[in-house]
Amino acid sequence: MTHSKTKTLVVDATDQAAGNGLMSRRFFINSALATGATLASGAPAIAQDAIVGEGQEDWTLYPGDDLPLYGDVSQFEKGRVQRFVAPPTGGRTASSSGRTPHHLLQGTITPSGLHFEVTHHGIPDIDPAKHKVVIHGMVKQPLKWDIEALENYPTVTRKYFMECSGNSRVCWAEKPDQNFMYMTHGLVSGSEWTGIPLSTLLDEVGVSPDAKWIIAEGGDSGSLSRSIPIDKALDDTIIAIYQNGERIRPSQGYPMRLLNPGFEGNTSVKWLRSLYVTDKPVMSRFETSKYTDKLYDGKALQFSLEMDVKSMITRPSSAISLKKKGLYEITGLAWSGRGKIAKVEVSADGGKTWAEAAIEGPVYDKMLTRFRIPWMWDGSPAILQSRATDEAGRLQPTREELLAARGKDAFYHYHAIHSWSVNAKGAIRHVYA
Amino acid sequence: MTHSKTKTLVVDATDQAAGNGLMSRRFFINSALATGATLASGAPAIAQDAIVGEGQEDWTLYPGDDLPLYGDVSQFEKGRVQRFVAPPTGGRTASSSGRTPHHLLQGTITPSGLHFEVTHHGIPDIDPAKHKVVIHGMVKQPLKWDIEALENYPTVTRKYFMECSGNSRVCWAEKPDQNFMYMTHGLVSGSEWTGIPLSTLLDEVGVSPDAKWIIAEGGDSGSLSRSIPIDKALDDTIIAIYQNGERIRPSQGYPMRLLNPGFEGNTSVKWLRSLYVTDKPVMSRFETSKYTDKLYDGKALQFSLEMDVKSMITRPSSAISLKKKGLYEITGLAWSGRGKIAKVEVSADGGKTWAEAAIEGPVYDKMLTRFRIPWMWDGSPAILQSRATDEAGRLQPTREELLAARGKDAFYHYHAIHSWSVNAKGAIRHVYA
Repeated sequence: MTHSKTKTLVVDATDQAAGNGLMSRRFFINSALATGATLASGAPAIAQDAIVGEGQEDWTLYPGDDLPLYGDVSQFEKGRVQRFVAPPTGGRTASSSGRTPHHLLQGTITPSGLHFEVTHHGIPDIDPAKHKVVIHGMVKQPLKWDIEALENYPTVTRKYFMECSGNSRVCWAEKPDQNFMYMTHGLVSGSEWTGIPLSTLLDEVGVSPDAKWIIAEGGDSGSLSRSIPIDKALDDTIIAIYQNGERIRPSQGYPMRLLNPGFEGNTSVKWLRSLYVTDKPVMSRFETSKYTDKLYDGKALQFSLEMDVKSMITRPSSAISLKKKGLYEITGLAWSGRGKIAKVEVSADGGKTWAEAAIEGPVYDKMLTRFRIPWMWDGSPAILQSRATDEAGRLQPTREELLAARGKDAFYHYHAIHSWSVNAKGAIRHVYA
Repeated sequence: MTHSKTKTLVVDATDQAAGNGLMSRRFFINSALATGATLASGAPAIAQDAIVGEGQEDWTLYPGDDLPLYGDVSQFEKGRVQRFVAPPTGGRTASSSGRTPHHLLQGTITPSGLHFEVTHHGIPDIDPAKHKVVIHGMVKQPLKWDIEALENYPTVTRKYFMECSGNSRVCWAEKPDQNFMYMTHGLVSGSEWTGIPLSTLLDEVGVSPDAKWIIAEGGDSGSLSRSIPIDKALDDTIIAIYQNGERIRPSQGYPMRLLNPGFEGNTSVKWLRSLYVTDKPVMSRFETSKYTDKLYDGKALQFSLEMDVKSMITRPSSAISLKKKGLYEITGLAWSGRGKIAKVEVSADGGKTWAEAAIEGPVYDKMLTRFRIPWMWDGSPAILQSRATDEAGRLQPTREELLAARGKDAFYHYHAIHSWSVNAKGAIRHVYA
């Protein structure tokens, strides 16, 4: 039985924002129900007298469980909502990754336990009482700090996305990957970080005027090292000790990590133990054999540190098929390593027409931004896309444009428009369009 | 050995913002280190050649652990950072609470596993496939939804504090409680919630023009019920299904809860199963025998739903003693059930003088706001206080003022200025001042 109001589809043409059913951003609020549009949810109608006696499950009859000291997710979410972990393929000293399941999440904060991680030498189990970070090199006076010492410094709390430059790299391949969003967009996450501005500590050690780079080194067994431009280090880089309210978890760098907002993820060195101030980059394995961008002429971009403007539709997406015609919400995330997101547009016809999505504000600098737009699916095939523009006016490119510019041997920094095809049965697949 | 720059205390008087060492909000950034102020962290100086060979713990030598499907906190945080759980004192059908350890947290987002909880009948373990919420009563057409149906509706993502009206109730007592912040301020938390505006669903069922209240009922065995004014329900009330990115945890109402921003916590009914639209309040146990405010004349305030403007200093606080003279950061949280926080002031001399703290923006409506101010502790006794003002100009009262207005038989809605005394040894205690 369905609600009598939902039997007919009567949508005013002025509500349409672009082709193939994209509706005005305010359609849901102002007119969807007044127009009698079918809600895809299809909430069943009930009789007033049918309610009493419904839902007499055990949990309505007997007292519940005791309160836990640290609350966990429901048993019904365990196994369903988790990271996709690609184990190391070259032994324990090779790289492995855990990917965020964005198709199952909402909002802009990624739960800390589901934040993506890439490690090249496993996750160290560091005793904070035995861990220190040193700043040395071209400084007046080298100093070292443990986490308790850092706690007394002035802190900042900021929301930032983090993205691995290898995120979406399967999209460089000739055929579209079908592993849900884990593989195409699982290496980006968003958090509220609290830490100490690195500039405060650099001020204290007294950096030489000739310093140009800082070599950040992790305390894991691989001593992962990256060179950070001194201008970035003096700008918005922090040493983070809290993530989403609590101390950073081991996968994210416990007890402390570097955090370079907007830069490719691996520069935000986890398990940070050393910052060496110098006048040239260290040319470590992770900025020579990895994390460089080979171009058509055989040369390679090195230190392409800022992440490009990008977006993804998280829902509907390939893990979620549409069960009936009607009104849906298209939602997703957008971000840019160079500032705030200014605009997100959505297309339901493979890029022929675009409508501007609603953005959930306030919009943060270098943070995931949630966008939403109502979509009236009439049962015909559709191709859903989103494209973001950042405050500097940079527009997310089409796949064709990105391939033309960077494609032949490219591996990192894929950030083109992503396409989900919806067929007449409501099944959704990743396609190149 | 200490850094040579830190041997003398030379602070320019212009950096002082209030008595007993409160410094300008920008002191740390602009001048703390330049003036040679002692940082309480006392970072040890090191020789350049002393660095190599330091820190050769096992985790620097051998590959680390495999990546977990859901990352947990460090073993070094477990047992240290957890809720304080007061078990039920009247058997399994009595009330119990789990309190947030704010003295150990940072930022504004409370980790979902540490969000406070109060339950009157334990935590039900609800199978979402067998749980529905109905809207009925004075409506054209009653409807029901499960979580999958709700997922197709237009959503909003908003950051809100939630506070139990019993938070800080120990502060009504004659002697100041000494159980750290768990007991004085552990029943308030902040989250990013995603859900469906209740107004959308009320629009769909067709609310009678004569409706004035909605009775919200939980699906736990106690069927906790609260009456919500229809104006609130049509304003910013949502049915929340996600908290901090993932589906709400059982302690917080899995699979769905009501969320009345700024209202006392128990109106945001967990495990929501019924919304009954009516023209009068239900006068349930939780709005008659509990959650009313007895006044001096023997009468009681009922439906005192909006939480008052309030703040707390989380650090330094009674769990954290000061080990040496020097520069510290005073930080804490402020909130108001009636809008945004406009200003937070801090005193180090028991309220004689006040300095305005820095606020971490952007400031959200009805959300925890983090404040910070540098403090130069010279080793003499101090009394640290914070007081918040909201955008409507409401100022957090002194304890004396609140007692005079409400104190004789008061139990709920304590929101006066909180005082931490620091003695000459750096030990910190909760005092009435």
